Amino acid sequence: MEGKVKQDGAGKICIRYNDGMTTIVAVDIGGTRMRAASYKQDQLSPNAQKKIPSLASQSGGLERLIRLIEDIWPPGGDVAAIGLGSPGPLDPHSGYLLAPPNNPEWHNFPLAPSVEKHFGVKTYLDNDGNLACLAEYRYGAGKGHRNALYITVSTGIGAGVVIEDRLLQGYHGLAAELGHVIVDPHGPPCSCGFNGHLESFSSGPAIVKYVLQELDSGSKSVVKRDESLSARDIAEAASKGDALAIRAYQRAGEYLGIGVASFLHIFDPSIVIFGGGVSQAGRLLFDPFEESLKRHVFHPRYLEGLVIAQAQLGDDAGLLGARALAEMKSGL
Amino acid sequence: MEGKVKQDGAGKICIRYNDGMTTIVAVDIGGTRMRAASYKQDQLSPNAQKKIPSLASQSGGLERLIRLIEDIWPPGGDVAAIGLGSPGPLDPHSGYLLAPPNNPEWHNFPLAPSVEKHFGVKTYLDNDGNLACLAEYRYGAGKGHRNALYITVSTGIGAGVVIEDRLLQGYHGLAAELGHVIVDPHGPPCSCGFNGHLESFSSGPAIVKYVLQELDSGSKSVVKRDESLSARDIAEAASKGDALAIRAYQRAGEYLGIGVASFLHIFDPSIVIFGGGVSQAGRLLFDPFEESLKRHVFHPRYLEGLVIAQAQLGDDAGLLGARALAEMKSGL
Repeated sequence: MEGKVKQDGAGKICIRYNDGMTTIVAVDIGGTRMRAASYKQDQLSPNAQKKIPSLASQSGGLERLIRLIEDIWPPGGDVAAIGLGSPGPLDPHSGYLLAPPNNPEWHNFPLAPSVEKHFGVKTYLDNDGNLACLAEYRYGAGKGHRNALYITVSTGIGAGVVIEDRLLQGYHGLAAELGHVIVDPHGPPCSCGFNGHLESFSSGPAIVKYVLQELDSGSKSVVKRDESLSARDIAEAASKGDALAIRAYQRAGEYLGIGVASFLHIFDPSIVIFGGGVSQAGRLLFDPFEESLKRHVFHPRYLEGLVIAQAQLGDDAGLLGARALAEMKSGL
Repeated sequence: MEGKVKQDGAGKICIRYNDGMTTIVAVDIGGTRMRAASYKQDQLSPNAQKKIPSLASQSGGLERLIRLIEDIWPPGGDVAAIGLGSPGPLDPHSGYLLAPPNNPEWHNFPLAPSVEKHFGVKTYLDNDGNLACLAEYRYGAGKGHRNALYITVSTGIGAGVVIEDRLLQGYHGLAAELGHVIVDPHGPPCSCGFNGHLESFSSGPAIVKYVLQELDSGSKSVVKRDESLSARDIAEAASKGDALAIRAYQRAGEYLGIGVASFLHIFDPSIVIFGGGVSQAGRLLFDPFEESLKRHVFHPRYLEGLVIAQAQLGDDAGLLGARALAEMKSGL
């Protein structure tokens, strides 16, 4: 057993022992904060973890990331692999970020190669939707399933797909963009600028936009036109029986059902896992969703044994997904 | 080297030598005919092949199939695996046919298990769309690609998907039904009875139906309302400049582009291969298709290096796909 001698801040010498077990380092790079953690291979909870502000619009992001990783680096130093999660678009094959939002410094940036070079440890990168899927599949709601869809309904609609125990990444690494599937070519514009995507019907902003348009057309509602109006405000109004608010969620659920019906025809999974803030609306969204799904699935066999589940890992999905990616890619 | 003594029909004794090379038996069960062939593992053309009428509506189908396989069975008898292709719906995991069209005898029928039991050789089953995809990926237009979509535009729209060298089958074996993806929920009914599927816009019958409806609405055209009117007749009228006929293919191509744009966002393949009679219409269909595809893809990176190709294997795709399935599933 090798030990490592270290002086702590108070000048006291401590000896830490490397227990020989494989450690994985995982990092979840979000828009507002970066989290890093180190995991022993046989343990679900981290050995060490730390969280810092992302400061995405400020320079020095790579240096901040490296310091963060160093801070949670295991004393023994026996790290088998590093997994990184970030909002897309990115290329998981090369480890390059392409054009992360609000971060001009990291456009077309070799993130995984830079981290790999610094630490001398194999480093893997993928986007937050794919990694949340991987995390739920491996540690959360999808445990035991080999074919899993994960859909997060939030400001956007993100997704990830596991097929026979493998993450769907695609040739350019841009697969599983289920929020940008066209569910109605005559539909409203999406955040990406294109029309009729699932996200343009069923995301939080889509629900808000629909309510505002209906208010403009003279619909009566307790909901007030307000700059800060959110999908949650509308859910609250719906819980009080507001007809427009209920209709807004019905429409979102209807299109979510249309989209997921197509995804069943495409992937035929055994579980569909929902995460994200808008999915917290519960039956308000999922009653019309299920009704629509059943109405649009073209063969009843797709629904046999199909599980529709809520995500279980919450905020930890990003970290655990980055960990799962590093483990799977390095064959652990 | 082992030999096998056999008497031929004329009573003459012939000795056939087993050359020790692995043989695969493949069967393509179509609506009108069954084809079987045996392949040496290192050869593309069959050692023996035979074709008989399917007589799907008549009883005794399994016996006919077994006799057909016996007729092409290699003399040495060293068959490693048998691959069967059939129209769906079917369950590739259990090898059961579920409800093949026009064949009541084979509803919920253990086709692969029956063949496996008779010959004592591992037998695999999948549907024609999946197998054509596998064949094109392994021996045809998709050679060298690891992420391939195959779409046949014909009486229906069939499809198959290969992701990182593996066939997408799904939990119930019903994945890759790309013809039944909803491209416009307000669209016309599909052959399956549900509305707005890709097949209900871009298949041969969909093109015919659109022309007939437009004729009913008073559109002028050289195309005559006729029971036998086909997509090919309409293509011919289009080649003579008929405005309605051209419009019909433009609409089919437009929706095909919408569907394939979504499939790129979903699978991010490096090749999309088109087969089927309607895809023979060439630029009449593919000019509006490509224009629509480019207009609907939400990130230009999906198109980088993307190949759009015609299927190369024609009628042999079914047999070669059954062969490829048997080889891949048995690890050859």
